[in-house]
Amino acid sequence: MLTDIEIAQRAELVPIAKIAADLGIHEEELEPYGRFKAKLNDSLYNRLASHQDGKLILVTAINPTPAGEGKTTTTAGLGEAMKQIGKNAVIALREPSLGPVFGIKGGAAGGGYAQVVPMEDINLHFTGDFHAITSANNLLCAMLDNHIHQGNALGIDQRRILIKRCLDMNDRALRNIVVGLGGKINGIPREDGFCITVASEIMAIFCLALDITDLKERLGRILVAYTFTGAPVYASDLKAQGAMAALLKDAINPNLVQTLEGTPVIMHGGPFANIAHGCNSVRATRLALKLADYCITEAGFGSDLGAEKFLDIKCRLAQLSPSAIVLVATARALKYNGGVTKDKTAEENLEALKKGIVNLGAHIANMKKYGVPVVVAINRFGTDSEAELAFIEKYCRDNGADFALSEVFAKGGAGGVDLAKKVCEAAEKPANFHPIYSSDSTVKQKIECIAKEIYGADGVDYTSQAEKAIREIAALGGDVLPVCIAKTQYSLSDNALLLGRPKGFRITIRDLRLSNGAGFVVAYAGDIMTMPGLPRVPSAEKIDVDENGKISGLF
Amino acid sequence: MLTDIEIAQRAELVPIAKIAADLGIHEEELEPYGRFKAKLNDSLYNRLASHQDGKLILVTAINPTPAGEGKTTTTAGLGEAMKQIGKNAVIALREPSLGPVFGIKGGAAGGGYAQVVPMEDINLHFTGDFHAITSANNLLCAMLDNHIHQGNALGIDQRRILIKRCLDMNDRALRNIVVGLGGKINGIPREDGFCITVASEIMAIFCLALDITDLKERLGRILVAYTFTGAPVYASDLKAQGAMAALLKDAINPNLVQTLEGTPVIMHGGPFANIAHGCNSVRATRLALKLADYCITEAGFGSDLGAEKFLDIKCRLAQLSPSAIVLVATARALKYNGGVTKDKTAEENLEALKKGIVNLGAHIANMKKYGVPVVVAINRFGTDSEAELAFIEKYCRDNGADFALSEVFAKGGAGGVDLAKKVCEAAEKPANFHPIYSSDSTVKQKIECIAKEIYGADGVDYTSQAEKAIREIAALGGDVLPVCIAKTQYSLSDNALLLGRPKGFRITIRDLRLSNGAGFVVAYAGDIMTMPGLPRVPSAEKIDVDENGKISGLF
Repeated sequence: MLTDIEIAQRAELVPIAKIAADLGIHEEELEPYGRFKAKLNDSLYNRLASHQDGKLILVTAINPTPAGEGKTTTTAGLGEAMKQIGKNAVIALREPSLGPVFGIKGGAAGGGYAQVVPMEDINLHFTGDFHAITSANNLLCAMLDNHIHQGNALGIDQRRILIKRCLDMNDRALRNIVVGLGGKINGIPREDGFCITVASEIMAIFCLALDITDLKERLGRILVAYTFTGAPVYASDLKAQGAMAALLKDAINPNLVQTLEGTPVIMHGGPFANIAHGCNSVRATRLALKLADYCITEAGFGSDLGAEKFLDIKCRLAQLSPSAIVLVATARALKYNGGVTKDKTAEENLEALKKGIVNLGAHIANMKKYGVPVVVAINRFGTDSEAELAFIEKYCRDNGADFALSEVFAKGGAGGVDLAKKVCEAAEKPANFHPIYSSDSTVKQKIECIAKEIYGADGVDYTSQAEKAIREIAALGGDVLPVCIAKTQYSLSDNALLLGRPKGFRITIRDLRLSNGAGFVVAYAGDIMTMPGLPRVPSAEKIDVDENGKISGLF
Repeated sequence: MLTDIEIAQRAELVPIAKIAADLGIHEEELEPYGRFKAKLNDSLYNRLASHQDGKLILVTAINPTPAGEGKTTTTAGLGEAMKQIGKNAVIALREPSLGPVFGIKGGAAGGGYAQVVPMEDINLHFTGDFHAITSANNLLCAMLDNHIHQGNALGIDQRRILIKRCLDMNDRALRNIVVGLGGKINGIPREDGFCITVASEIMAIFCLALDITDLKERLGRILVAYTFTGAPVYASDLKAQGAMAALLKDAINPNLVQTLEGTPVIMHGGPFANIAHGCNSVRATRLALKLADYCITEAGFGSDLGAEKFLDIKCRLAQLSPSAIVLVATARALKYNGGVTKDKTAEENLEALKKGIVNLGAHIANMKKYGVPVVVAINRFGTDSEAELAFIEKYCRDNGADFALSEVFAKGGAGGVDLAKKVCEAAEKPANFHPIYSSDSTVKQKIECIAKEIYGADGVDYTSQAEKAIREIAALGGDVLPVCIAKTQYSLSDNALLLGRPKGFRITIRDLRLSNGAGFVVAYAGDIMTMPGLPRVPSAEKIDVDENGKISGLF
């Protein structure tokens, strides 16, 4: 079996100018970055503004397990399969972060014969979007510390600075630091820390901004600190938003790449799905909808995090209305949810499957609450038994979802034909999309709605810190914003160890934070790491490049 | 008078594919980055390997003054002027750093009608080279701290870590920091600090590497720390060089852009000229020499720093042999050197000129010691009097240098015709280039040679710290390497206040550092700031971008 990078490197890529031309994109609307990557500029956006939108298909999943579900692989494969059945589709995806590439996870552009290429470029610097976000974020931080150092006219309390510097790197040593040491000419000492770039508010803003003007306004609205008298300090108070937007002016143009079978992929932005909303940029999704009859997109983690935020935050903001939701699962992962250890998930075990499939059941029920048809895609492994697959199929039908097997990892688009057909059928059904909560409800009401309706909790508890934060956020006008719950991805509850479909639990909100530029309130249901670390043997140790510039060790 | 950015934005740029085609570059040898930037890949390099080299022209200057000399402007204008006299020239320049763009200096791509364009792109992210260098540097640091955190098998002494993280940002708060706080899961606490990306050793390596294999070897040789027993720890001990090189594989391909008049410019790399060697990459210079009859390049700061290092470090390593040296000065700067304050430099003052011109005299004499013909280029201002210019011209001839007035700022290439002719004449003279010291001499002998021959010092003193460092470096085999003296750029001496041509002084080497990957020994003659700060009113506050993506406030 070839590795992902071997498959990707053997592929014959179509010149990106041809991919673009086949989509009806004019030459002047395309900014090439090498031969196989390009940015799509505003003239395309403007020309297509009045065009009819295609249908929006969201790919999400059950709660992630160590067995692996293959959501991006399914998304890429579904896009390829659409071509096989004569449909015109564009895929919209997040860009990968460098952090996991050097850490444990390796690349994040699909797998097997359902990958997005050029795989090495996409997994390394791509077109530089994340670097631009890093620069914009760190410029804001440098201006803030400089403001304090130069006399602190705004009266910023250095104990109440909210914005952190960032790097697109897994670097635990930067989680908690003290800056400004070394005496008078070297700044004001204070506690600080870095987050990874994908966890920065700028990343979330980048992905929700409609255009450069909206981007600049959102950047200006970032709540960066409080003064000694408790007044909010925004990025616009530091006059930072113009230069930050200038740093992002090219980055906000979506990137065009392709799958191994030449299906167009618009890859743009990549916020975390816990402290942010976890899906590619609004601009990418909107463009894909204009360019094709079907836009296939995905959201991070399981449907309780990624899809909920996609539907309640992004679709609400960008007035998007999905026509179908694909829920990815594997027989292995469902058995794992039924209590089987990872090393035993390849063995047939109908008892465990029956016990664990309730996790899938919860996700189906949750997605149906949004008024959108659901298709379950089982990412098939050779070890799955016919009895297991039959059981899952029946369960899905009994629970009101369509069902399809997907073999896109091994077969590319040809392995996703049945899935593509089911998705197209589902997308023809009457959909009646609506977010799960109203903007008018309070922050607490919104949290309670998600906790009960999506997580299945009995209720929500708040620490005193959280109660205080809710009052502060309300005082700043944040009550009208959607909420973004930062919770473990491994369970429907806020306890990573509770698999399946937990019942009889409450969730605890420890703290909240106003992502005022992004336009949502982050509620922390547990400790969320915003700066990962490297493992004992980082995958960076295996990555290499030969004398011809050929990269190895990415996977 | 239009500002630099206004002139740049009104220019009609030639598509970069046409610039390349006119140079005989094949389509597959060019990697476009948008319509007006491109990278030149190894297939071009390889195809031209056996071609005859053009003539190498180095542009350098007197010691910088607040009056401004216009070295990059002269370089760009000279390149434009070569076309006016029917010569085929390619300019090789450093890429600007983001730090100064947001701080005080503004852009760094020439000025007036002698600019490199697209100015905004070049001054912001360009093709992402500096971001790639930042990533590679910070990956190495993350791997080092992770190694210690994960058990420290190499026995690294966290008090003796030499490598610093970096950002391409002026951020004084990061100069002196403590990292790894927050308890056991968050790393090992230690003192640390960031430098600006252009001050990183990776930047110097990037600019001296001949190809990807050489790059990887140099990265592996970086001395990152010492163990508790005093043994050296190299990047290769952390197995970091493969992934670092993978991050740099596209970045090491030189960038092609153009001047306002369509002269090709290869812009690549940009190390500091104090703690590093201060000129664009060897790969860029070599490529320019293959592509044109004249390669016009520049080195940082005055000739005592930039040219000395260009000639003694870069030319030695890359076996380059310059045919002529252009020494840029202004009447204003020479009067400033003669004791006139900045606000009075526009007034005719032959006394001050006579007193200050000895600075120019020293630089002429220094450059002639390398066996290369010298042309003085006076960057003309409207306030320069005829008597002043005549005095300078006679002084240059009396001191064995050619002389030309340059008006490229106001007139573009047409303002540099006389300079271009003089340069071509000089380049036809027999040159006998040789570095000023031999590789075989010791580190102390090399420092003493530069101090006496170039700075005009009577001798060199060493602190006990420096003596210790010299012994350690010799023990690691560093004695055979060239030296790179980190000294103030404002004076020929190590005292920034001594203008003109100081006599009767000694310089003090405080400390030394082995840039083992770059392949030189840095000797510190004074405090060198490797992380600048922002000023009271950063230029970032004025930078903006409008709804069409048009940037303002860069200058």
